[in-house]
Amino acid sequence: MRPTVYIKDLKNYTGKEVTLKGWLYNKRSSGKIKFLILRDGTGYTQCVVVKGNVSEETFENADKITQESSFEITGTVKEEPRAVSGYEIDTKSLSIISLANEYPITPKEHGVEFLIDHRHLWIRSRRQVAILKIRHRIVKAIRDFFDERGFTLFDPPIITPNACEGTSTLFEMDYFDLGKAYLTQSGQLYGESGAMAFGKIYTFGPTFRAEKSKTRRHLTEFWMVEPEMAFYDLDDNMDLAEEFLEYIVQTVLKDRAEELKELQRDTSKLEKVKRPFPRISYDEAVEILKKKGVDFQWGNDLGGTDETLISEEFDKPVMVHRYPAEVKAFYMKRDPANPKLALAVDILAPEGYGEIIGGSQREDDLNLLLSRIKEHNLPQDFFEWYLDLRRYGSVPHSGFGLGLERTVSWICGLEHLREAIPFPRMIYRNTP
Amino acid sequence: MRPTVYIKDLKNYTGKEVTLKGWLYNKRSSGKIKFLILRDGTGYTQCVVVKGNVSEETFENADKITQESSFEITGTVKEEPRAVSGYEIDTKSLSIISLANEYPITPKEHGVEFLIDHRHLWIRSRRQVAILKIRHRIVKAIRDFFDERGFTLFDPPIITPNACEGTSTLFEMDYFDLGKAYLTQSGQLYGESGAMAFGKIYTFGPTFRAEKSKTRRHLTEFWMVEPEMAFYDLDDNMDLAEEFLEYIVQTVLKDRAEELKELQRDTSKLEKVKRPFPRISYDEAVEILKKKGVDFQWGNDLGGTDETLISEEFDKPVMVHRYPAEVKAFYMKRDPANPKLALAVDILAPEGYGEIIGGSQREDDLNLLLSRIKEHNLPQDFFEWYLDLRRYGSVPHSGFGLGLERTVSWICGLEHLREAIPFPRMIYRNTP
Repeated sequence: MRPTVYIKDLKNYTGKEVTLKGWLYNKRSSGKIKFLILRDGTGYTQCVVVKGNVSEETFENADKITQESSFEITGTVKEEPRAVSGYEIDTKSLSIISLANEYPITPKEHGVEFLIDHRHLWIRSRRQVAILKIRHRIVKAIRDFFDERGFTLFDPPIITPNACEGTSTLFEMDYFDLGKAYLTQSGQLYGESGAMAFGKIYTFGPTFRAEKSKTRRHLTEFWMVEPEMAFYDLDDNMDLAEEFLEYIVQTVLKDRAEELKELQRDTSKLEKVKRPFPRISYDEAVEILKKKGVDFQWGNDLGGTDETLISEEFDKPVMVHRYPAEVKAFYMKRDPANPKLALAVDILAPEGYGEIIGGSQREDDLNLLLSRIKEHNLPQDFFEWYLDLRRYGSVPHSGFGLGLERTVSWICGLEHLREAIPFPRMIYRNTP
Repeated sequence: MRPTVYIKDLKNYTGKEVTLKGWLYNKRSSGKIKFLILRDGTGYTQCVVVKGNVSEETFENADKITQESSFEITGTVKEEPRAVSGYEIDTKSLSIISLANEYPITPKEHGVEFLIDHRHLWIRSRRQVAILKIRHRIVKAIRDFFDERGFTLFDPPIITPNACEGTSTLFEMDYFDLGKAYLTQSGQLYGESGAMAFGKIYTFGPTFRAEKSKTRRHLTEFWMVEPEMAFYDLDDNMDLAEEFLEYIVQTVLKDRAEELKELQRDTSKLEKVKRPFPRISYDEAVEILKKKGVDFQWGNDLGGTDETLISEEFDKPVMVHRYPAEVKAFYMKRDPANPKLALAVDILAPEGYGEIIGGSQREDDLNLLLSRIKEHNLPQDFFEWYLDLRRYGSVPHSGFGLGLERTVSWICGLEHLREAIPFPRMIYRNTP
């Protein structure tokens, strides 16, 4: 019973009779003619029902069918440049599969809370379909990029035993007789063990932060891709990240032009995302802020507003490297030229979308790593396995993490991350 | 500083001088010659170090280097059919990057608990590398299969509000001020909402079961892919599942022959996994069990031993359909020909690997679904959004779920699921 023809393939059926199945997106009447817009998940097409040309039953069905009702339609495919898909269906017969109740989401404006309450229906709208199709294409671009470059996929565990950087932003649970366990915040440490086995790996899965942030840039559950490469230093890491971002953006521009148009995205901004990206040191970033009149203290981390002010100076993603070690994680390697600095890099998206990549070269010296763990008051026994990576064939290595929803948000030009994932989870929302 | 040549590409460098970076897999000496096996994550190659042909320092390095030490080696690539990769390196110089401590995993036999304690190192072994490379190829085959057939990726939430089928096998956590939340056991219900928006979707992510099962077939955390298709009935669903399994197995046979050989997998068994697969009803399955002398009561679910006895009759995966509704989930559609049966299908892998796919046509009638929810004493308010899918344009639809680790396990011929994922999580283990 599955459909044999989908809307996206109508061009192959001009002049032929086809049967389509789907849902009513929209309807208008003009006397004895009904224009029904059918959606089937692959596209939208107009079905023309003319009284007299069809049975009474079919015309009645076309008259009574409601928004989002499911139906089956048989008719002839005609080229029609003015219609939504470039084709329309000259209807022969129409049967209703299930007549929908009054659909809650109407063309009028709805509040955001109402829409998220109805997320399971909201995803049927043209805008949400466009966003989630772009999300899919981004995921595929990410995987293709690494697969084509000899990286091995390395799925890290979601349930983790260690409260790596404090428990305040962790989701905690009981794990049988083994005490507390936590949802992962990052697969990186595990990814490092993979890099020592496979040379180059990437992890790609959901990660969790129980942060009490209510901003439009925060989800409690989000997907992150984290490549990790043996024998890569900070410069190699930045080269890879730059190539990676260019690849993602240019692939979406090429393959999802229709969806970007649906979102009215200014694609000229995305077209500029080509290598090389500007690379500035933290010191230079501080200079930019000072020139702009910000009272910024060297040694602090860059805040959201600071990031926006810096990225405004560029029309491409900007790579900010070599941060004060104090504001960065314990596992980052210090700059041999200045041990106060960590060999870290953050990449700030243009148009105020903030940090989309964070990465670093990792500390590969056993004793230095041990002393960092002590300085940070971290429980050494939890990290013994991680320290083993420095005991047995340590090598210089680097990696970075890219947040999927932030990337979707930036490429689609969204105002809030909640539209970048099918069912968003936020501090105040875990339904539907 | 990243490597410019990897072992897998040596064939392009015959007669040329290259520099390789990696780890010492193995070493043997024959008087004034050292044979070092280098691994770099892409393969293994023999490096020959001859006293007199190299500096004293290089020869000393070759002498003192220990298992899993990291090193850099420069030399000329020579064809050598007897050597591990078909090539060997005539060494000019060797420098040690980091001399490894005495490596805990030696060629002698280790207990399984010891090996899992050292999972971060165990993954470097040839066997584990082969398994995880096959896992990667299976994941890619799964995604390619659906991407090429017009399915949209639809990532379901991991944190879910509803204790859908009882809380006894759920991991529970506190979710801010919203009470308890749970880790997902399946993305299916969410996937159904996606099918109504996109026609055909697939979810693919980690799922969780806090089952107190200690068998070799159970992990508490495992990956599952779940396609869901509007307008597919049970037969369409079985056709798709069959094509899907054939595609995965035949792709791995073609692309990962070397790794299957490493695992000494009997590939003749896998070569038989070609359509059509046998399709038998539950009733016929019961007949098979009875003929084999099993005292099996019609109406019970098939247990692991039953599944093995049934699958022994076939040299391909076998599809068992139309189970007693009582042993199946509330959302499955009843067979119009016999309402005691659910339109369910389980696919049993050959060679005793058990159920790898479970699927069904879903109940698309609002009132029937409502009465099932009541019969199962499920909280209706949690399911209002799911019921909405029947209120607004309900259509016949179907889907199934495939467990990734069980599939890896079957294709690789593993005895226990724990080797099928980088860091296995079991009832008695959540480290490292």
